[in-house]
Amino acid sequence: KYFGLTTFAHLPYNPTCFEDASKDAAADIVIVGAPFDTGVSARPGARYGPLGIRSNSQRISPEFDYDEYGFNAFQSWATMIDCGDVPMLPFDNRIALAQLQKAHELILARGSKNTTVSPIPRIFTLGGDHTITLPALRAIHKTRGPVTILHFDSHIDTWSPVRKLSAYAGVNHGTWGWHAFHEKLLNTNNLHVGIRSPYDNPREDLETDKKCGFEIINAKMIDRIGVTGVISAIKTRIGDSKVYLSIDIDVLDPAFAPGATGTPESGGYSTRELLAILDGLDGLSIVGADIVEVAPAYDGPGQITSLAAVEAAHSILGLMVKTPVGD
Amino acid sequence: KYFGLTTFAHLPYNPTCFEDASKDAAADIVIVGAPFDTGVSARPGARYGPLGIRSNSQRISPEFDYDEYGFNAFQSWATMIDCGDVPMLPFDNRIALAQLQKAHELILARGSKNTTVSPIPRIFTLGGDHTITLPALRAIHKTRGPVTILHFDSHIDTWSPVRKLSAYAGVNHGTWGWHAFHEKLLNTNNLHVGIRSPYDNPREDLETDKKCGFEIINAKMIDRIGVTGVISAIKTRIGDSKVYLSIDIDVLDPAFAPGATGTPESGGYSTRELLAILDGLDGLSIVGADIVEVAPAYDGPGQITSLAAVEAAHSILGLMVKTPVGD
Amino acid sequence: KYFGLTTFAHLPYNPTCFEDASKDAAADIVIVGAPFDTGVSARPGARYGPLGIRSNSQRISPEFDYDEYGFNAFQSWATMIDCGDVPMLPFDNRIALAQLQKAHELILARGSKNTTVSPIPRIFTLGGDHTITLPALRAIHKTRGPVTILHFDSHIDTWSPVRKLSAYAGVNHGTWGWHAFHEKLLNTNNLHVGIRSPYDNPREDLETDKKCGFEIINAKMIDRIGVTGVISAIKTRIGDSKVYLSIDIDVLDPAFAPGATGTPESGGYSTRELLAILDGLDGLSIVGADIVEVAPAYDGPGQITSLAAVEAAHSILGLMVKTPVGD
Amino acid sequence: KYFGLTTFAHLPYNPTCFEDASKDAAADIVIVGAPFDTGVSARPGARYGPLGIRSNSQRISPEFDYDEYGFNAFQSWATMIDCGDVPMLPFDNRIALAQLQKAHELILARGSKNTTVSPIPRIFTLGGDHTITLPALRAIHKTRGPVTILHFDSHIDTWSPVRKLSAYAGVNHGTWGWHAFHEKLLNTNNLHVGIRSPYDNPREDLETDKKCGFEIINAKMIDRIGVTGVISAIKTRIGDSKVYLSIDIDVLDPAFAPGATGTPESGGYSTRELLAILDGLDGLSIVGADIVEVAPAYDGPGQITSLAAVEAAHSILGLMVKTPVGD
Amino acid sequence: KYFGLTTFAHLPYNPTCFEDASKDAAADIVIVGAPFDTGVSARPGARYGPLGIRSNSQRISPEFDYDEYGFNAFQSWATMIDCGDVPMLPFDNRIALAQLQKAHELILARGSKNTTVSPIPRIFTLGGDHTITLPALRAIHKTRGPVTILHFDSHIDTWSPVRKLSAYAGVNHGTWGWHAFHEKLLNTNNLHVGIRSPYDNPREDLETDKKCGFEIINAKMIDRIGVTGVISAIKTRIGDSKVYLSIDIDVLDPAFAPGATGTPESGGYSTRELLAILDGLDGLSIVGADIVEVAPAYDGPGQITSLAAVEAAHSILGLMVKTPVGD
Amino acid sequence: KYFGLTTFAHLPYNPTCFEDASKDAAADIVIVGAPFDTGVSARPGARYGPLGIRSNSQRISPEFDYDEYGFNAFQSWATMIDCGDVPMLPFDNRIALAQLQKAHELILARGSKNTTVSPIPRIFTLGGDHTITLPALRAIHKTRGPVTILHFDSHIDTWSPVRKLSAYAGVNHGTWGWHAFHEKLLNTNNLHVGIRSPYDNPREDLETDKKCGFEIINAKMIDRIGVTGVISAIKTRIGDSKVYLSIDIDVLDPAFAPGATGTPESGGYSTRELLAILDGLDGLSIVGADIVEVAPAYDGPGQITSLAAVEAAHSILGLMVKTPVGD
Ligand SMILES: [Mn+2]
Ligand SMILES: [Mn+2]
Ligand SMILES: [Mn+2]
Ligand SMILES: [Mn+2]
Ligand SMILES: [Mn+2]
Ligand SMILES: [Mn+2]
Ligand SMILES: [Mn+2]
Ligand SMILES: [Mn+2]
Ligand SMILES: [Mn+2]
Ligand SMILES: [Mn+2]
Ligand SMILES: [Mn+2]
Ligand SMILES: [Mn+2]
Repeated sequence: KYFGLTTFAHLPYNPTCFEDASKDAAADIVIVGAPFDTGVSARPGARYGPLGIRSNSQRISPEFDYDEYGFNAFQSWATMIDCGDVPMLPFDNRIALAQLQKAHELILARGSKNTTVSPIPRIFTLGGDHTITLPALRAIHKTRGPVTILHFDSHIDTWSPVRKLSAYAGVNHGTWGWHAFHEKLLNTNNLHVGIRSPYDNPREDLETDKKCGFEIINAKMIDRIGVTGVISAIKTRIGDSKVYLSIDIDVLDPAFAPGATGTPESGGYSTRELLAILDGLDGLSIVGADIVEVAPAYDGPGQITSLAAVEAAHSILGLMVKTPVGD
Repeated sequence: KYFGLTTFAHLPYNPTCFEDASKDAAADIVIVGAPFDTGVSARPGARYGPLGIRSNSQRISPEFDYDEYGFNAFQSWATMIDCGDVPMLPFDNRIALAQLQKAHELILARGSKNTTVSPIPRIFTLGGDHTITLPALRAIHKTRGPVTILHFDSHIDTWSPVRKLSAYAGVNHGTWGWHAFHEKLLNTNNLHVGIRSPYDNPREDLETDKKCGFEIINAKMIDRIGVTGVISAIKTRIGDSKVYLSIDIDVLDPAFAPGATGTPESGGYSTRELLAILDGLDGLSIVGADIVEVAPAYDGPGQITSLAAVEAAHSILGLMVKTPVGD
Repeated sequence: KYFGLTTFAHLPYNPTCFEDASKDAAADIVIVGAPFDTGVSARPGARYGPLGIRSNSQRISPEFDYDEYGFNAFQSWATMIDCGDVPMLPFDNRIALAQLQKAHELILARGSKNTTVSPIPRIFTLGGDHTITLPALRAIHKTRGPVTILHFDSHIDTWSPVRKLSAYAGVNHGTWGWHAFHEKLLNTNNLHVGIRSPYDNPREDLETDKKCGFEIINAKMIDRIGVTGVISAIKTRIGDSKVYLSIDIDVLDPAFAPGATGTPESGGYSTRELLAILDGLDGLSIVGADIVEVAPAYDGPGQITSLAAVEAAHSILGLMVKTPVGD
Repeated sequence: KYFGLTTFAHLPYNPTCFEDASKDAAADIVIVGAPFDTGVSARPGARYGPLGIRSNSQRISPEFDYDEYGFNAFQSWATMIDCGDVPMLPFDNRIALAQLQKAHELILARGSKNTTVSPIPRIFTLGGDHTITLPALRAIHKTRGPVTILHFDSHIDTWSPVRKLSAYAGVNHGTWGWHAFHEKLLNTNNLHVGIRSPYDNPREDLETDKKCGFEIINAKMIDRIGVTGVISAIKTRIGDSKVYLSIDIDVLDPAFAPGATGTPESGGYSTRELLAILDGLDGLSIVGADIVEVAPAYDGPGQITSLAAVEAAHSILGLMVKTPVGD
Repeated sequence: KYFGLTTFAHLPYNPTCFEDASKDAAADIVIVGAPFDTGVSARPGARYGPLGIRSNSQRISPEFDYDEYGFNAFQSWATMIDCGDVPMLPFDNRIALAQLQKAHELILARGSKNTTVSPIPRIFTLGGDHTITLPALRAIHKTRGPVTILHFDSHIDTWSPVRKLSAYAGVNHGTWGWHAFHEKLLNTNNLHVGIRSPYDNPREDLETDKKCGFEIINAKMIDRIGVTGVISAIKTRIGDSKVYLSIDIDVLDPAFAPGATGTPESGGYSTRELLAILDGLDGLSIVGADIVEVAPAYDGPGQITSLAAVEAAHSILGLMVKTPVGD
Repeated sequence: KYFGLTTFAHLPYNPTCFEDASKDAAADIVIVGAPFDTGVSARPGARYGPLGIRSNSQRISPEFDYDEYGFNAFQSWATMIDCGDVPMLPFDNRIALAQLQKAHELILARGSKNTTVSPIPRIFTLGGDHTITLPALRAIHKTRGPVTILHFDSHIDTWSPVRKLSAYAGVNHGTWGWHAFHEKLLNTNNLHVGIRSPYDNPREDLETDKKCGFEIINAKMIDRIGVTGVISAIKTRIGDSKVYLSIDIDVLDPAFAPGATGTPESGGYSTRELLAILDGLDGLSIVGADIVEVAPAYDGPGQITSLAAVEAAHSILGLMVKTPVGD
């Protein structure tokens, strides 16, 4: 099935999600596009990430998506819909991020479809640059309080905005983690996975990161502890915390994600490694998730970055269905 | 506006168009995608044409689309919707083309929205390879009887299927015109514009073409008679016939349409020439139209073929609004 | 050597292979191109696979192709030729597949060059979509009877055609395995390697697959058992059966095969893993082989998918020379 | 000459241009890069415009650049240097645009090299999105007072920021002309050339545009009045006013500028037409110029958009040398 | 027909053309590939030009290639074959060019097939960078004496090698014209068409060019005299001289030939203009021809440069058949 | 930081490096571009390697480049500069290679900046095809005597030039190792890492290679001995010899280096493996290094080959700073 209008995985589209009074938009898991990339330091283009990801998800059919054990996440208890892209102003980050936050709040406040399993819907956001995680966390905090971040990235994204040239400039794809912590949106058992970029300062960045409640699994560690080692380190760190799972596609090596925006970093994970790690996360209480920094213009005609993002999203949706999270 | 789900020009999407009982799908001009390319002799890929065209139409906003005289086709008497892609089986052309014909018939039978202007809606089809014009013509014939074809192409597409190896093989992107004529769907004042490909036989192809009711304006003629000459030749030939306007994007030179599928032919029109010709067609009674053979995989990252197709479609929608056609 | 006309690895071209009466086309290993992609469900383009593979094989020179032990498959007992592409009609799959089968039968019936080693030549087919394996198996069956399939793919390709909309539609790149079994072309010790796509039905697909005589080595298993584990599992399963080796290039991860047609699936093998597995298959009695689903239009300018296909083909030709198979 | 470090046309690089105290940076014509694209409504990427333009200017050699009359703009009275890119913060447009303005002011205040010909140097800016023209005009105004704009574009870029959601959002690549006029930086004999995009409002946009002192030569007019007609219309309108020449590369058709950022519009000029028009502008008193909206990521491997921009810049530098402008 | 082994336009391949004793290689018009690009000053890659051109010529079928008057150049008096690529050493230009010259001489000496029409075959060379015209002219000179050059290019290619750093360096794609003249291979009524690149010296280059027997039709002249003016200027200049027709694909604008190697120059012809000029050259006594500087790596996926080169070659072959040239 | 003129990692540019009398060009580690690719057997394009590598190094900022232990190679004892590209004639390899050698000699003879640490500067060359290693070794030999080569490549590059057709042809990207040994520039404990291409002769190539003082770690060995095994094999072989580190980017698999020129070979290392091996080489006495065969035209828009080359270069610069080497 490559035809149809391009929602994620052919899920039904509800164009009224972002209207206050929408009655029929209730769902349990909600796909939202965040076409935003003016918080990026180097390569822009993630505003077209939602289009790229959806376009390359057409090979997934909800009705024909069983795993080898007969499980199909789309045919289980959860109603999933795609709300399309939130309208985000390209000319003022403050307004754009508020637009996104408002959209998230509206969806969360609307409540779920299958209320017996969980009253609060869960949102999967298709980025956009990594700044878009901040409004997602702000919205979630209003409903659920602080959460733990499980963060796949080659960068720590907790850079301090203090020395930035303006408050406006201080909110970007490298500082959202810092803001999330300082706005008290986070627990203190957060975790970075796949880190490999250099630091701006001799020691200060790492100290700030620690203060924000993060530990780090460096990219190269996987060669020593393997996929299973990474999985158990994650499970140990996160436990049964309510967790927000954020995947910066640049956690993959540029060979697997040539269309990673921001600052691609060589030496990353393969897609198979990332998918194997995600497969091992069964049982985590995921309350929200995103996949960010997909910039189709930097991908080749095979669109492999979008394909990898689709499959990671696909895995995470499965995890979310397998482990419902109450309020 | 680059956000939102990708309908053509941000038009509203109605996912129930292809269901018999849909009550709210009535419209005056209806966009339909025809993801089909198994009727193609050389480069395939037009099955992704509707996706490419819609994705590159996001810069058109119905509410902000005024020309220099204050006219906005989207804010006039006609309700326009995008029905998405017709589900077309990739494995059997007969079934796929029947699926497309059925979808057209359903839309035409449903009637228009603004019945005082015209009771019959008009369909603009986003191809797909050129074979898709045949089911469109079959459906129109049921409502309106025979029509005249105004056909922009570098190929005549009236090749005889007689010597083909099977009846199945005989219906393809080079024979739809022959079939349309022999099924009595056409008037006899048809016209090809932009022709420049070689012929298969010394004289026979041209004779067949003539028998099918076509005259030819060769591509190179524009250098002698200019855009205005082409326009008046068209108007003279078509007059006030009910006309179906079919644009094979390979009428453009490969520099303007590198993503033209089928068999791209050097030496074609520029996009500006095509748009200038279309601008001059004000007053034609267009009862249906399509733009076909856009294959995004052969386009570069700038997606200029889709951009040109979008703008041609944009022009034609304007023509259709300016000149309503009764039953 | 990048010059010359583009046969595979600069092998001699014989343009009369597909003529009945050709006298000088006898060879021991025969390269055949199968330009066919109308059996594909998603991305088309494999009709240009033979062109892409041959074009990227120019760095192999038969006279200068020794391994570290001094062995050169092209300078051994076997005469190898490239027959070019079989003419396959793009407009009717039934005719096209019959054309391919006829070409195979003609080559096999013509007999080998070095009859003392083996009287029956062996064909290596450059696909084309995966449907082309079916006529290859039909032709082999006439000479050698049933064979065992060793099948590298991310998909099982034994989907049942029963619920398809027509008999015509039921023969495609996802059902050739089912047909091969039901036409009694196969032994019952077949094997899939690298599988990772979802299933259409909760349990039925897997049961059908089993009935068709297949076992499965999932893609992710390689992380547990390693390349050597995969090799010994294959050898145990196949033993000394006469084996047809079919490689769908989508067994590779999209990073290694962005130009994989059909439905690319993230999380696959690296090229080095595939080549290491093939290296380990020394001793298998390969009676025919193919590499399919290479679609150059989806590759970038580096044409890495074709390069990987070339190297896999290169390896397999070595295996075929090292282990001659009698009748 | 493709080697060397990539300044424009191999001009000497002075890395101290943007330092207050630089003594040796005086020149008569100064190339400046403006890596900025956060004022763009659709496709971003023009921040890499200066890199793309410089990289594709390597075929111009100042010492070997004579025209058929023996004239070489690089070997005439004017010292030309390339100052590299102005550091522009990607996270706050206000700061970035101020950084650019400061850099321009510094260069202009430093004075020229050949003071006998003209005491004030002239800057050629490589954009960047079209917003960057605003700080260039602000800087020029301080030295020379109001100027006339000669503006090649498919858009008018005088859209009113009044209804925008914030003052911050109101300064962007579509409103710089409005601001320039309202900040009294412009004369009233400005001219747009190549316009073809739709308007946001029935009549208001055109009225605003007129109030800002602009007249319009629509893109399609060239087919009626020819290149010579366009040239004389420009000369009539501009006369001997001090003129700032701003070229939005989207004035070209997407076939000639697939890497035009912002909103590419089909139906534009060919590169030859643009160059012919520029050739005809001999004698205009150009006090500054820019070429903007080049986004290399949307160009193909041939980088034809950058090539076209290079040649337009090349022409304009010739015009600037041929017609010195005093203070 | 996209299948088969990739000769130009599906012409028969003769692999023995370059062997002294070949008996069956006689033909009237002979296609030869010259995979050579080490004479290029900027972008290399034309060594793959023959592959790109042949691959994109598959849409031409000799048996189905009639024009509107029923003429088919492939079904006329002339036997045409494709000899494949001449083996040319990539590591020493002197050897490579001698290899090419030897191959040409062998073909010319072998004589034609249809000796009653003309005893000397004519060669169409697929370049390769422009240096390859020199050995072609040397070979022709041995059979026919001096010829007139009709040269389409954006560069004059008569640059003096005198000041070059070595004799070896002095033979390259910008000096072949100078050498041809000084080796007395040329008449004095040569003509450049489409020139637009700058000169290295104030007046000297033009004087040298004149001494070599060339006149110039600048690229921009077409806007004044039109295609018909260019045609009659050519005919006046050439008359009934024996003419060698050499087309550097960079005569086209980069929009039509993004894959032009060497130094692409903006502001060139459209493909339609070039084809219209060629169409007008009916009656010229063409004794040999080439099309050079096609570099597929710089083309996009649509391969429009190769398509344009194919169509130009196609036209020229037609001219050669229509006007036989005796000895 | 993506702005500025494109030196490697924003290092300061000194345009006078290649002038004899330059006084201020002294440095401890010197980046030099070698735009040369006429020594290549297959895909050309590495002449643009320096441009591609520098353009993609903009995400490295000397002032913000600390590792997790607080070390910053750019802020340590060593002054690093980028000298831009050496002017290398594209038309005569002998002259071009002499130009490069002269430039190296000039830099080495000029002496270092921080003479207390080491009096001799070290050069990191950005290739260019692999031939460029030969002049680098010749220059080093004059200052330091013979060195040991640590050579990452898929090819051995010690092919004998003896049977080549000319002395000129005998110096190329596959023979530089042979020449280096026979010119007595090398020690006898050299090492190839990552080899996987076939050999030209049954045993002779390997014997020649051994005579040139090389041992081989084949590509596939990494699957048996792991990254750590490769590292210790290197350290054992090299010991404390003065070592020249040469990385042919084709040591990576084409998925990680689609823009590898020459002859890309499937089945290579991942970027992470290469970087991990380099990380393990702490303590080697590196006296010079290069990274070669990067051909941007064969890379996709994500430019991942250049990114990988940048990161490898980045690592090696760190090794060079950590382990100073006296005279
Ligand atoms: Mn990141
Ligand atoms: Mn991030
Ligand atoms: Mn057509
Ligand atoms: Mn057509
Ligand atoms: Mn598959
Ligand atoms: Mn398959
Ligand atoms: Mn514009
Ligand atoms: Mn603009
Ligand atoms: Mn040229
Ligand atoms: Mn030339
Ligand atoms: Mn190599
Ligand atoms: Mn090498």
